[in-house]
Amino acid sequence: METLTVALGERSYPIYIGAGLLDRAELLAPLCAGRQVCVITNEVVAPLYLERLLATLAPSQPDHLILPDGEAHKTLETASRIYDYLLERNYSRSCVLVALGGGVIGDMVGFAAATYQRGVRFIQVPTTLLAQVDSSVGGKTGVNRPLGKNMVGAFYQPQAVLIDVATLDTLPLRELQAGLAEVLKYGFINNRAFHDWLETALPALLTRERQALIHAIKVSCQEKAAIVAADETEGGVRATLNLGHTFGHAIETAMGYGTWLHGEGVAAGMVMAADLSQRLGLLDAASARAIKTLIARAGLPVAPPAELTPERFIALMAKDKKAEKGAIKFILLNAIGRAVYNHTAPPELLDATLTAGARLADF
Amino acid sequence: METLTVALGERSYPIYIGAGLLDRAELLAPLCAGRQVCVITNEVVAPLYLERLLATLAPSQPDHLILPDGEAHKTLETASRIYDYLLERNYSRSCVLVALGGGVIGDMVGFAAATYQRGVRFIQVPTTLLAQVDSSVGGKTGVNRPLGKNMVGAFYQPQAVLIDVATLDTLPLRELQAGLAEVLKYGFINNRAFHDWLETALPALLTRERQALIHAIKVSCQEKAAIVAADETEGGVRATLNLGHTFGHAIETAMGYGTWLHGEGVAAGMVMAADLSQRLGLLDAASARAIKTLIARAGLPVAPPAELTPERFIALMAKDKKAEKGAIKFILLNAIGRAVYNHTAPPELLDATLTAGARLADF
Repeated sequence: METLTVALGERSYPIYIGAGLLDRAELLAPLCAGRQVCVITNEVVAPLYLERLLATLAPSQPDHLILPDGEAHKTLETASRIYDYLLERNYSRSCVLVALGGGVIGDMVGFAAATYQRGVRFIQVPTTLLAQVDSSVGGKTGVNRPLGKNMVGAFYQPQAVLIDVATLDTLPLRELQAGLAEVLKYGFINNRAFHDWLETALPALLTRERQALIHAIKVSCQEKAAIVAADETEGGVRATLNLGHTFGHAIETAMGYGTWLHGEGVAAGMVMAADLSQRLGLLDAASARAIKTLIARAGLPVAPPAELTPERFIALMAKDKKAEKGAIKFILLNAIGRAVYNHTAPPELLDATLTAGARLADF
Repeated sequence: METLTVALGERSYPIYIGAGLLDRAELLAPLCAGRQVCVITNEVVAPLYLERLLATLAPSQPDHLILPDGEAHKTLETASRIYDYLLERNYSRSCVLVALGGGVIGDMVGFAAATYQRGVRFIQVPTTLLAQVDSSVGGKTGVNRPLGKNMVGAFYQPQAVLIDVATLDTLPLRELQAGLAEVLKYGFINNRAFHDWLETALPALLTRERQALIHAIKVSCQEKAAIVAADETEGGVRATLNLGHTFGHAIETAMGYGTWLHGEGVAAGMVMAADLSQRLGLLDAASARAIKTLIARAGLPVAPPAELTPERFIALMAKDKKAEKGAIKFILLNAIGRAVYNHTAPPELLDATLTAGARLADF
């Protein structure tokens, strides 16, 4: 087992990464002893892992709540089901919520924990690769509104994150690949050595070899923790975590949420960011090609869908919440392992990348 | 004008107290310049003060949103109206919300500010005495659930609090008196000199003399700020702010919210706490009598309603969220100006206070 500490002063917390951690009572017991404990999960994850986690937590006599699965249920209405479940059972401020599931469960339970009686403890047990490498660090919690994703939320840190890589055995391959997009991202933005390791280890990751997964998750969390510790509420360098996201969000929105997975949009978006970086003279052609090659080897898309016109791309990107007053800011690459942020692009170069569009998939 | 600073490190903020501050553009302009600004108020306050505040903020071209009045609307549904109003107008993370109204508006707008896009700036402009002395300091924001008041919320600090005592001219006398209950409380729990001043100044406060109001509000906010700075998230000494509240909440709940105002329940509750303190040998009879006399002179109730039995009192108090595991903890008085917290009471003494009940009103 690997243990990382996310250093945030008195809100610091550990991330445990290993195989079979769901059964390790000694990791959770110190956080739960003498407290009311409620495990919150969804209909898909519950049949797979809920009983085991409840057995591990048995000395605390945990309650559990099973919510419907999917982004469509990441709402204040579902959060209210959590509040009322806890209120009906007289949960006090000293209780602990345990989020068992992917990003939707983690974000929503985190938000409920941030706001139930003005803040109670919570523990993350992420069961998708995306949640393990992305939501474990950063303290972003929230729910959607009809007019925008994650528009209601809080920055709120968990007491601990427990990552059992064995839970990835049941993850559909497409979701594993989508999670890998974020793993690859950390190599591209900040860690050349990790990128080089990924070029070798990618087949092992795709076949879910546990030591490879543990290493990939550990480095991803370390990279994100270092960036978040430097910029907890997203004013500066944290922006680099959004490499590929401005393009990717536009793709997700245009195609309808769920048609492209988040990681798939980010993957194509990273290729587009590399292409734009190359056109701007920031990145050499060989590096841009290496980035595209690695993303393709992960089974991820390397170009946006053909039906998405440059005009529609620009309209969608200008609406993104990261855009301030219409000027679209990009995260670009100087080299593999070195990102720059708050970068604008001359319209003709941006247009060239957008016009290339689906042809970016050609090698 | 008086200016206090609530010292909370990088979350410190000023409280401005004076007459006519609603028109003082120079106080708000530095906080609003170059930002999207939305004033949020209710149907009762809007006709009285909204136009003036909008005129003061005119350089920022403020939007405004008028919500229904009353505790019944302090809900996630109303908070959602705020979120969606802001989303429809593309409000970014750099926006400012201005809460114009009493405690319900302050708590709810504060909660919306704490959670819109994971936290935006907000300014409090409290227009009731209770909100001015109680909600201005402490960072408690929140909304109700059907199963409990303030059960969903966050600790979140404003950028500034602007207290215009001229707004109290339109406050119904009964609400002014209810606000005075909290003012008197600060004398009882922590400031004998303030208590003595209040014994003299009470008639001036009841006739809304501005210099007296400014002084009373200033000292109340100072007292609360000192206690909150020592204990931001309510682990210890902050409990003393709840003098009279355990009894008072039971009265409010038993009578149905709104039948007794919060301050009225607290007033009767403080007399009960003084009575229990006297029975425990903590407080001398003359002091208990002085407390009751001052509360009565403010036109506030000095005894619980006759229909509330000791049994019902105990059942309601045990359900209070401050009660841990059934043992009811009281805030009691050692002397005027000296509170003790986390105090239990032998059942027979508590029963004597509860049995006295409405007879506490006898002098």
